Amino acid sequence: MKTLSELVKSRVPQMQAWRRDLHHYAESGWLEFRTATRVAEALHRLGYQLQLGREVIAAEARMGLPSAELLAQQEARAREQGALPQWLPYFSGGFCGVVATLETGRPGPVMGFRVDMDALDQHESQDADHLPAREGFASCNPGMMHACGHDGHTTIGLALADVLMAMKAQLSGTIKLIFQPAEEGVRGARAMVAAGVLDDVDLFTAIHLGTGVPAGEIVCGSDSFLATTKLDVTFTGTGAHAGGNPEAGRNALLAAAQATLGLHSLPQHSGGVARVNVGVLQAGTGRNVVPDCALMKVETRGVSNRVNDDIYQQALRVIEGAAAMYGVTHAVQLMGGARSCTPSPAWVAFIHQQADALGLFQSVVDTRRQAAGSEDATYMMERVQQRGGQASYVIFGCDLAAGHHNAKFDFDEAIMATAVQTLATLALNQAQFGGAQ
Amino acid sequence: MKTLSELVKSRVPQMQAWRRDLHHYAESGWLEFRTATRVAEALHRLGYQLQLGREVIAAEARMGLPSAELLAQQEARAREQGALPQWLPYFSGGFCGVVATLETGRPGPVMGFRVDMDALDQHESQDADHLPAREGFASCNPGMMHACGHDGHTTIGLALADVLMAMKAQLSGTIKLIFQPAEEGVRGARAMVAAGVLDDVDLFTAIHLGTGVPAGEIVCGSDSFLATTKLDVTFTGTGAHAGGNPEAGRNALLAAAQATLGLHSLPQHSGGVARVNVGVLQAGTGRNVVPDCALMKVETRGVSNRVNDDIYQQALRVIEGAAAMYGVTHAVQLMGGARSCTPSPAWVAFIHQQADALGLFQSVVDTRRQAAGSEDATYMMERVQQRGGQASYVIFGCDLAAGHHNAKFDFDEAIMATAVQTLATLALNQAQFGGAQ
Amino acid sequence: MKTLSELVKSRVPQMQAWRRDLHHYAESGWLEFRTATRVAEALHRLGYQLQLGREVIAAEARMGLPSAELLAQQEARAREQGALPQWLPYFSGGFCGVVATLETGRPGPVMGFRVDMDALDQHESQDADHLPAREGFASCNPGMMHACGHDGHTTIGLALADVLMAMKAQLSGTIKLIFQPAEEGVRGARAMVAAGVLDDVDLFTAIHLGTGVPAGEIVCGSDSFLATTKLDVTFTGTGAHAGGNPEAGRNALLAAAQATLGLHSLPQHSGGVARVNVGVLQAGTGRNVVPDCALMKVETRGVSNRVNDDIYQQALRVIEGAAAMYGVTHAVQLMGGARSCTPSPAWVAFIHQQADALGLFQSVVDTRRQAAGSEDATYMMERVQQRGGQASYVIFGCDLAAGHHNAKFDFDEAIMATAVQTLATLALNQAQFGGAQ
Amino acid sequence: MKTLSELVKSRVPQMQAWRRDLHHYAESGWLEFRTATRVAEALHRLGYQLQLGREVIAAEARMGLPSAELLAQQEARAREQGALPQWLPYFSGGFCGVVATLETGRPGPVMGFRVDMDALDQHESQDADHLPAREGFASCNPGMMHACGHDGHTTIGLALADVLMAMKAQLSGTIKLIFQPAEEGVRGARAMVAAGVLDDVDLFTAIHLGTGVPAGEIVCGSDSFLATTKLDVTFTGTGAHAGGNPEAGRNALLAAAQATLGLHSLPQHSGGVARVNVGVLQAGTGRNVVPDCALMKVETRGVSNRVNDDIYQQALRVIEGAAAMYGVTHAVQLMGGARSCTPSPAWVAFIHQQADALGLFQSVVDTRRQAAGSEDATYMMERVQQRGGQASYVIFGCDLAAGHHNAKFDFDEAIMATAVQTLATLALNQAQFGGAQ
Repeated sequence: MKTLSELVKSRVPQMQAWRRDLHHYAESGWLEFRTATRVAEALHRLGYQLQLGREVIAAEARMGLPSAELLAQQEARAREQGALPQWLPYFSGGFCGVVATLETGRPGPVMGFRVDMDALDQHESQDADHLPAREGFASCNPGMMHACGHDGHTTIGLALADVLMAMKAQLSGTIKLIFQPAEEGVRGARAMVAAGVLDDVDLFTAIHLGTGVPAGEIVCGSDSFLATTKLDVTFTGTGAHAGGNPEAGRNALLAAAQATLGLHSLPQHSGGVARVNVGVLQAGTGRNVVPDCALMKVETRGVSNRVNDDIYQQALRVIEGAAAMYGVTHAVQLMGGARSCTPSPAWVAFIHQQADALGLFQSVVDTRRQAAGSEDATYMMERVQQRGGQASYVIFGCDLAAGHHNAKFDFDEAIMATAVQTLATLALNQAQFGGAQ
Repeated sequence: MKTLSELVKSRVPQMQAWRRDLHHYAESGWLEFRTATRVAEALHRLGYQLQLGREVIAAEARMGLPSAELLAQQEARAREQGALPQWLPYFSGGFCGVVATLETGRPGPVMGFRVDMDALDQHESQDADHLPAREGFASCNPGMMHACGHDGHTTIGLALADVLMAMKAQLSGTIKLIFQPAEEGVRGARAMVAAGVLDDVDLFTAIHLGTGVPAGEIVCGSDSFLATTKLDVTFTGTGAHAGGNPEAGRNALLAAAQATLGLHSLPQHSGGVARVNVGVLQAGTGRNVVPDCALMKVETRGVSNRVNDDIYQQALRVIEGAAAMYGVTHAVQLMGGARSCTPSPAWVAFIHQQADALGLFQSVVDTRRQAAGSEDATYMMERVQQRGGQASYVIFGCDLAAGHHNAKFDFDEAIMATAVQTLATLALNQAQFGGAQ
Repeated sequence: MKTLSELVKSRVPQMQAWRRDLHHYAESGWLEFRTATRVAEALHRLGYQLQLGREVIAAEARMGLPSAELLAQQEARAREQGALPQWLPYFSGGFCGVVATLETGRPGPVMGFRVDMDALDQHESQDADHLPAREGFASCNPGMMHACGHDGHTTIGLALADVLMAMKAQLSGTIKLIFQPAEEGVRGARAMVAAGVLDDVDLFTAIHLGTGVPAGEIVCGSDSFLATTKLDVTFTGTGAHAGGNPEAGRNALLAAAQATLGLHSLPQHSGGVARVNVGVLQAGTGRNVVPDCALMKVETRGVSNRVNDDIYQQALRVIEGAAAMYGVTHAVQLMGGARSCTPSPAWVAFIHQQADALGLFQSVVDTRRQAAGSEDATYMMERVQQRGGQASYVIFGCDLAAGHHNAKFDFDEAIMATAVQTLATLALNQAQFGGAQ
Repeated sequence: MKTLSELVKSRVPQMQAWRRDLHHYAESGWLEFRTATRVAEALHRLGYQLQLGREVIAAEARMGLPSAELLAQQEARAREQGALPQWLPYFSGGFCGVVATLETGRPGPVMGFRVDMDALDQHESQDADHLPAREGFASCNPGMMHACGHDGHTTIGLALADVLMAMKAQLSGTIKLIFQPAEEGVRGARAMVAAGVLDDVDLFTAIHLGTGVPAGEIVCGSDSFLATTKLDVTFTGTGAHAGGNPEAGRNALLAAAQATLGLHSLPQHSGGVARVNVGVLQAGTGRNVVPDCALMKVETRGVSNRVNDDIYQQALRVIEGAAAMYGVTHAVQLMGGARSCTPSPAWVAFIHQQADALGLFQSVVDTRRQAAGSEDATYMMERVQQRGGQASYVIFGCDLAAGHHNAKFDFDEAIMATAVQTLATLALNQAQFGGAQ
């Protein structure tokens, strides 16, 4: 019987093939139609029980969904690009989530692993010095690019499924592999939590590669994510000729300008890091018309859920007051959200110990001071911890060709095997975890 | 029997005495305690029927009233300065209005004449080049000065009462002389209208001296006053240590800053001149404390009542919205108000014709382009016109030592006799007015 | 020999043909390539001396010019749509102006007539209830439509040229017909003035049809235009991750929000109507990025050049200060401009008298209270008056199918003959004008 | 020979007497005239060498100095209240600093101890439940109160001087006792540093009592102070009648409102806690006048000097830009400042060890999470550390009757003896410190 290490090594060509296929057909958040069918097919063939689409994605809890028109258009595009027709109907309308379960038949906890599948809304470099371009697997979808490594994450998830099924006899409890859509913009996780996907998970691990962690290092319990809320705010007023009868207008742009200044006055908080950003403001239709419309793309952040919630509640008040000042109506639409991140110490310690023992890493750390971003796996972690489970967020350091969100982003594919071996080890040795359970 | 001209001439020394006494004991708006008792006594001695205090001032309609403390303190001050104890109780608490009526017993309209009695809140110059100082009748009350000529107006009212009583036999109908408090800040007229003082007046004339009109000119129907609303706005929030726990504060100063910018964005109106001014803003208690209080002194103006009302209604919305933005409470207190001014054409024409005939003026005009101020006699004019009466606002040009509201303001006292003769003539010749009646 | 009336009547079919051709090939401002070649050809055939393109358009004085790319693309479009190749080179690059001169050989003043040629940036209705659509001459150029009647103006100019040439023997002095590009957005006239086109004109008349003036009425000296300045303002800052290192950003959106509020605080002016509008604001690139760019489309207006200039100068100060507040750079680009309008009384009186005598109008008036718009023929009027000439702005009332700038705008074509007859009469009877010359 | 403990115990009645005298004659910052003369006299009698007034206070480096008028008036008040005439001249004009030096004649480092002497600008409760009131030593100076415990600090300094002189034979090196004025508002320390007072200090200790630290606890190296800058900002514009000719005004209030919103948009910083507060805004003179003046009391804070400096530099830019927007001038006056606090680890460890050994404390800690305030002893610490010395900030926990800055603030006087014994121990055992020297 092959060792785990040999088994993983044997899957490397398959991993590269999967990753490059996913990379080539990059699909942005909620539009992972082809990806999800491919994932479902692979897991099905491996023998996993599948939950798909609306079973694992609560429709109302989705945030930042594209328009129905775009969803339909992209589903057609995916079909042309080889989305598998037997699976596609499950995902139609923006439900591209897949959960695969392996019941070992032996008593033990439910272990959940989460990977994400979506690309970013950006063009990929076609320059020869960009390896995916040179080797022909750069994105064929304009304005969509795997510039954050989620193609790698999905591949790790599939290979982990493969390896674990192969070593099923050595496992106990239940394995639950979660393939999430729309992590970019922190839009998708909440809908999977709302669908109950995490409600039976006892030991949860979400992963990321890269993020500035050096090659050879594993971060076992990254905790530097900020809680965040993303909102689109629209003000709707009344147009009027600005020279002829300005008093007939209700000025949405002035409301937005006041709201912008009000929002930026909020983030001073004794609880720690607090942030507000009005990142985009688009208002008005013509130079000589009192502006009757304004759109603001806003985000709040906080070092803790409490800080973020405080800022967000105050932001709503500012927006409502600014609208009232100018007699315009307003609407706030949630476009994304994430929670702050507090990995479970016992689970982090177990991962740390297992990673040490593996001998694959030059550096094994619990956490690392990182720039303040956000991640919606935190919704899942929070749910697991609320139920008494253990959760962590693991980062696999690796070499990057260029930073995340760069048109020439690429990562060293070797990290995928390392990740699979590490995660599989957690599953295989899970019985050793006495943790806080 | 003396002619009107001779009669007026004989009263010149009395007029000077009255005016200089009033000037010396200058009393600001709602605090004309001594003045009102002197006016009441003089009119009583002349034989007029008097209505006093609460009879002619509706308590609730008073605007910009001083504090109860200040009212009490100033009443005491007035008593010490010779306020007549038999009349003072009528005016106690800020009711310093006097209306004197002369029923001729002959049929005819009710003619109303309005003069105002209050001084300004400013110090009077004590320099030797300032005639009142040099001749010893400059204000003895610090921070109160007749720098607008209302001492002259009151004197004109008293001398007019004197002359008309002397010529009673030649009059018909009813003469009603209205002595108003608190014209500065446009605070008092509304309360006299609300008390019904104008409800029986058919022919109404309010007057002013000076105002930039050259000596020798009379303006028979000045119409350049703007409608206006004066409001004090307070925002009340919650203090907090600005370094230690800023999020616990509710920032009244930020609400006021937003409101200020919002208010100043309002006055663009196709109906004509529109104005907003936040003239004073006082907020906060300490450098390191989130400001829990803010006071704004605001005014709106408009070329017409409609324009002013539009701006005022929008101002209320801005204030309310700004408070909501920061979760602070707000209160709006009306501190003054006036209406736009539309003298009745027929009555203006009659005044014009009478002034021409008098031969006292080098120039008789209907109106004159003036800087945009406000005057609350407009409330009285509006009331008279609503009931079908005729109303006008007459300005007697005269030489001034310095402009209105200047610490060295003074006027040529000769204008008082001219005014008395003109107004008496209107009363005597009133039967010739066929007007719009 | 035909009378003027007969002559005009005989040209009606030609006028309709011209107008409908121009309407069908509607071309927006600075892009009137086909139109200008057709105008040049017609005037050339009639025997006029022509000045074209750069001769009559000062390159640097053009405002609101489209990009070089759009100019080239539209020139190609025009060529395909029948722009005449012998004239097109003169207009290449955005110089679509034509001036036609007729020297009578007899002494007399230079009479200038100005018409404009550009369409608006909007789609034309293709509904059957819209006559141009029903009769097949609606615009074939998407996003360009003669919705203001300039197709009529150009036709009037051509027919006037035709009629005056036919009656050349009865004329004296010089006739100068000015065909202006880019009146919409008040962008083109300044460049013709700067090129010296008006420097020899003694008697100047600009025209418009419709504008709410009822059919049967002529306004001989419309004076209700506001002086205006149109400006595009860009702020350029520095982007940064709004969560990770916000202090590294220089926030262009906040600068724009402050500038917007500052600009809207400006228009309170004792000189009369003053206006500011920030009609459009577009800022930022992403929700989680400190905005590094902002574009504001702004206009100022004033009842007089002085008021507009005051507001404009203050606007520049506000913009510069707001940029300084946030350490961002700013650029202001002039996009259009017009002057206030003061028709020459003597010339207006002459037009009034001639219009009366013609018997074509039920109502002949000097001016009319209109909503406050702007018109850049005012630059031409100002130039003529500066040199001692006489100038006026004439409006020919007519029935409209829908208001100006409406997708179903259309006018009663009969007004064109009336206008031609009126303007030709001014030329024929010019010797009777003793005016202020 | 008495032990230190016995010696301190014997001084307790003297300490109470000193403290209550100082408390009764509370003097606010820069006005500690009586206090400083009493301090100087006591130290002189003990045999210390004194440096006084301008020798230890650099005139130009003083911040937030009262007006010359107030200084003179308060000096006169102090004289009446028993300021000693032989010392008063040194302090005249706001130079109330005292430095006392004891040269032991034996080699060793210079040890500096800093205490502060000023009261707060507030009224003291005269209620019977307030011990100082009940026992007759509440402040006799209206609007000045020792509500922060500096009377205790000064007393500790004097008693320490007494004890150390008594035990001079057991000391080595030099003892330097620094009595600082104007700590409230963080105004005085910078001027003592600028005068060179700290330039020879090797081991520096500043102290505070209370501050929320529980009785029985000593904090050996408090590091929770924020760097801060206090500034007064004035905008000066031009007044004008807001109705009559608003465009003639230059509106200082609008500049202040924009600046306020701009300032509050600054504090988002990846370096950690950042704060801005516009605590007070006073603007304008009358409701109907364009405001020609505005005063803002502002502070910035930062977790580090760099963060505070970043925010402060941006604040200057915001203020300058806002002034430019409205064409008003501005002036910025530094009113106070402090640095962030980084106690020297070795010196903290030594204090910790000595405090442990003393047996006077139930709890000895290095630091403690405290609310974010500021303290200008940090200027002194920074100076000592720049020269290679060691510095710390020690807090002696004690029971308080009410919180600092409360009108009923009072502390358990027993803490003074504990503090003296602790500080004297540091001096006596200093030779054991091998530290980082």
